[in-house]
Amino acid sequence: MRVRLDLSYDGAAFHGFQVQAKDNSVQAELCRALGVLFSEPIAVCGCSRTDAGVHARHFVCHACLPDSAHLSPATLKSINALVCPALSVRRIEHVSDDFHARYSATKKTYRYYLHVSPYRAPLMAGRVTHVPYALDVDAMRDACRLLVGQHDFRAFQAAGSKVRDTVREVYSCTLTEQDGDVLYLEISANGFLYRMVRNIAGTLIAIGQGKHYDINELLAARDRTRSGPCAPPEGLYLWQVDYEERSKV
Amino acid sequence: MRVRLDLSYDGAAFHGFQVQAKDNSVQAELCRALGVLFSEPIAVCGCSRTDAGVHARHFVCHACLPDSAHLSPATLKSINALVCPALSVRRIEHVSDDFHARYSATKKTYRYYLHVSPYRAPLMAGRVTHVPYALDVDAMRDACRLLVGQHDFRAFQAAGSKVRDTVREVYSCTLTEQDGDVLYLEISANGFLYRMVRNIAGTLIAIGQGKHYDINELLAARDRTRSGPCAPPEGLYLWQVDYEERSKV
Repeated sequence: MRVRLDLSYDGAAFHGFQVQAKDNSVQAELCRALGVLFSEPIAVCGCSRTDAGVHARHFVCHACLPDSAHLSPATLKSINALVCPALSVRRIEHVSDDFHARYSATKKTYRYYLHVSPYRAPLMAGRVTHVPYALDVDAMRDACRLLVGQHDFRAFQAAGSKVRDTVREVYSCTLTEQDGDVLYLEISANGFLYRMVRNIAGTLIAIGQGKHYDINELLAARDRTRSGPCAPPEGLYLWQVDYEERSKV
Repeated sequence: MRVRLDLSYDGAAFHGFQVQAKDNSVQAELCRALGVLFSEPIAVCGCSRTDAGVHARHFVCHACLPDSAHLSPATLKSINALVCPALSVRRIEHVSDDFHARYSATKKTYRYYLHVSPYRAPLMAGRVTHVPYALDVDAMRDACRLLVGQHDFRAFQAAGSKVRDTVREVYSCTLTEQDGDVLYLEISANGFLYRMVRNIAGTLIAIGQGKHYDINELLAARDRTRSGPCAPPEGLYLWQVDYEERSKV
């Protein structure tokens, strides 16, 4: 029986989503809990391989449970009692066998949070990236607009990545100011390349600092060495994953 | 030379503001850093004695530095390099000798954050109080309105507190919904009694659950045993402290 699980997690507590040889991962934690609950090894497949330190407000997995498994509100409670507090499963539901957490996704939305202030904010530690200088938000917004649409995003893919088809469609890319000193980038696309959001965020921060990067030139050049630095993981959130025929969570 | 310090801190890292015999406190941390920087013991007086676990987005202290002390941007950097990361000093400035962090304050604003959802939110852990059932927000708002004005708030003062004058003026008391599942109480007053906000928050949560509490009756009765339970510290933030002739931070 195939199930879909909707979860959220604090990326600071894990070395990324994917199982690691030694380190703790979301996938390992979830496999362990489902294995205990259903008394057999359960494989879990995630919608994305978030890096160490990256957070997920909404993350979707699928898993195959024994056909005898019965899903009830108690199932969800049991799973949540078995996983560590940095992980929370918000929904589990029976889905058709062709549902795939990664390949069935039609849209993913990421947010990248910046705290723009000369001072550290202890209450945002590990949740935002601290930028201790003023940013030219208008210049950053101009750059955001040029990223929208179908483009080859190879310039923003991590060096060494083996993905060949680097064309993606960005549906929206916006910057929003919040509470005076918080700024977040929200970017929705049909898919993302490895480290694409962090490389875009790093380039936008550099633009905000007055460095010259021409987005159109970068997209055309398809050369990672010409775009800006990779922004740190703690400001990044997988915000929402959408599938056909499903309402927002 | 008297100085005013504006700071913020993560309450989870401290056993409250005030120096404790054994445990870590904001006051002890700040005294230690100033003592190292100015090579003599420096006393620090805070605007409020927040409890263990209570956060401060904005907190004000005053301290007396040696008259030879020179304040510069480097002073602030040095203090921040000496305190632990859970504490951040955002401003230090010379003030007149009659400035008192506690007695000169004209208004204090607290916020109490609730996460209203059947599920835990790992990304809000330690920052909000989790309420795993729906709340009647309209009933809570009706109660908020009755708290505004000059009243004797003895019913909301911690039992055993020795403060005699329990009349305070609440300037505003509102509930705001945010991001779908977050609800925060914001309450401004000329002063607060010990645990007053947490006792009010606990009573409002109980009202939201359908329990019967008549605010006017509670205020008239002046009896702590008749009001609701004390809400936990992790949802509470000292949000802003105002003084005469000072703009907002």
